Amino acid sequence: MPTGSGHTKAILASKVQGTPVYNTTGQKIGEVEDVVLDKTTDRIMFAALGFGGVLGIGEKYAAVPWSMLDYQPDRGGYVVPMSEDVIKKAPTYDLDDLTNDDGQIREASYTYYNVPRSQ
Amino acid sequence: MPTGSGHTKAILASKVQGTPVYNTTGQKIGEVEDVVLDKTTDRIMFAALGFGGVLGIGEKYAAVPWSMLDYQPDRGGYVVPMSEDVIKKAPTYDLDDLTNDDGQIREASYTYYNVPRSQ
Repeated sequence: MPTGSGHTKAILASKVQGTPVYNTTGQKIGEVEDVVLDKTTDRIMFAALGFGGVLGIGEKYAAVPWSMLDYQPDRGGYVVPMSEDVIKKAPTYDLDDLTNDDGQIREASYTYYNVPRSQ
Repeated sequence: MPTGSGHTKAILASKVQGTPVYNTTGQKIGEVEDVVLDKTTDRIMFAALGFGGVLGIGEKYAAVPWSMLDYQPDRGGYVVPMSEDVIKKAPTYDLDDLTNDDGQIREASYTYYNVPRSQ
């Protein structure tokens, strides 16, 4: 059964990877590089957003709470409610940092983006 | 900080995709095709396991609870405690079914594999 917005709840991780991300004014701010999963629970830790970088060289990724990603079909991408200032100052990590983590980055992402921790 | 088994909790979805899956006797039974995520919560719905198929043509996928996947570094893959009978009779779906779903397949997977629902 679809959700209120006419979509079903399920999405393949592979469909999320590479999806562009826009701010609320329609500016492209990056794309979803990957989704970080918790091996020990069935939680999605966060999305790894690339905010630039050339061909991924030396690129760093912001850890963004999954609940911030609002897919808008007419844009063909996610819209996240972040000001330019928030994006510019966002803590970023390389992919090794993200996978050598035990939940601290998830905690930090909820705090930085001021998003309620999921139940 | 690593878990008891010496690993950290976090893993990239892209690292899970394509990982081989073995039964407890060491036989390869398939591989993880993809991970299905819930858009409306931060839950991993289940893993989509391919149990064969030639070049993915006409392949169907079993929806397996995330908690069943136990990564064993010495095997380079996941080990799942499923008997041959359970595998043979497992309900399978095509990828469209899996993404046109609203949680019923997750429920069915917990029931079929007799796995506790996650909290």
